[in-house]
Amino acid sequence: MTRWKPDAAGRLVAAAIALFDEQGYDATTVAEIAERAGLTKRTFFRHFADKREVLFSGSEELERRWLQGIAATPADATPLAAVTAGFDGVAEMFEERHAFARMRARIVDANPELQERELIKLQTLAGSIAQALRERGVLHNAAILASQAGVTVFHVAFARWVAQDDPSAFRQLMDESLAELRGVTTA
Amino acid sequence: MTRWKPDAAGRLVAAAIALFDEQGYDATTVAEIAERAGLTKRTFFRHFADKREVLFSGSEELERRWLQGIAATPADATPLAAVTAGFDGVAEMFEERHAFARMRARIVDANPELQERELIKLQTLAGSIAQALRERGVLHNAAILASQAGVTVFHVAFARWVAQDDPSAFRQLMDESLAELRGVTTA
Repeated sequence: MTRWKPDAAGRLVAAAIALFDEQGYDATTVAEIAERAGLTKRTFFRHFADKREVLFSGSEELERRWLQGIAATPADATPLAAVTAGFDGVAEMFEERHAFARMRARIVDANPELQERELIKLQTLAGSIAQALRERGVLHNAAILASQAGVTVFHVAFARWVAQDDPSAFRQLMDESLAELRGVTTA
Repeated sequence: MTRWKPDAAGRLVAAAIALFDEQGYDATTVAEIAERAGLTKRTFFRHFADKREVLFSGSEELERRWLQGIAATPADATPLAAVTAGFDGVAEMFEERHAFARMRARIVDANPELQERELIKLQTLAGSIAQALRERGVLHNAAILASQAGVTVFHVAFARWVAQDDPSAFRQLMDESLAELRGVTTA
């Protein structure tokens, strides 16, 4: 169902997502997650602060991949070109997690607290991207505007990707969302 | 210092902001806020759920003004033109609250929990704007992209406005931020 490698953290994530999906996020305890994964609560807490963080354990890899894409662009790339250079690595990361992402999206969409957490994580990501742009010499406002544009495009594409059936469509959906943003801001 | 009208809610907001600024947000209690305003705790809780909400009491007016601006645009306005039609009413609202907004910004910037709340409020605002656009017949993605663009422009302009000394500069700063966003997305 998901293709997480069978390390402890990956097993805990898979167990948590399955339990949240089966019996609801609120009703699921850390003890149940650990048991389903065949691990102890102690092991759980070595990897995650609480059950909520299990759902956001991909955010570090997302940020790392995105920033790697930015770092690989030529110094004279425009701010938005630098931001969108992260799209390849991001799409690649998600492609093999489509079933997981769909279940996760259902869980998050059903819970206002998780939706808020998701927004905070996205804004934290936007902040890191803006910081990376500033370190390339992009001015403060342009860095914020370009990073927000990139994260919004990502967010819109992500919602479309989990709502359709083709795991490989994400990269294309990001391009389409970017074109739509260009259309919206230039119209 | 601030120009809130001397109604109970306004007095509580002014008292809270002054106390947060003087002795810190965490150290300030609802009892102290009520006392400073010459009111009871009971009156406080008739107006606000907790001391945090005092800082976000302007968000309803902000949304109302913004949506009024959108509603007043012709049906054939582009999505972004509709969104930016809210800027006049928004700038007008803040113009007479510059001293207040600066103190508030200092308090929020010093507290991660308040920063998170601010982001949530902005995203809620973006959601309401997107909803208003959809009701005008704008397609889902264009509505999200245009509303996010508008809120980002607002956010960038707001940060610049509280960092400078001219209360009347907000409207102009919004135009400049919008031009910068256009520059970023078309470059």
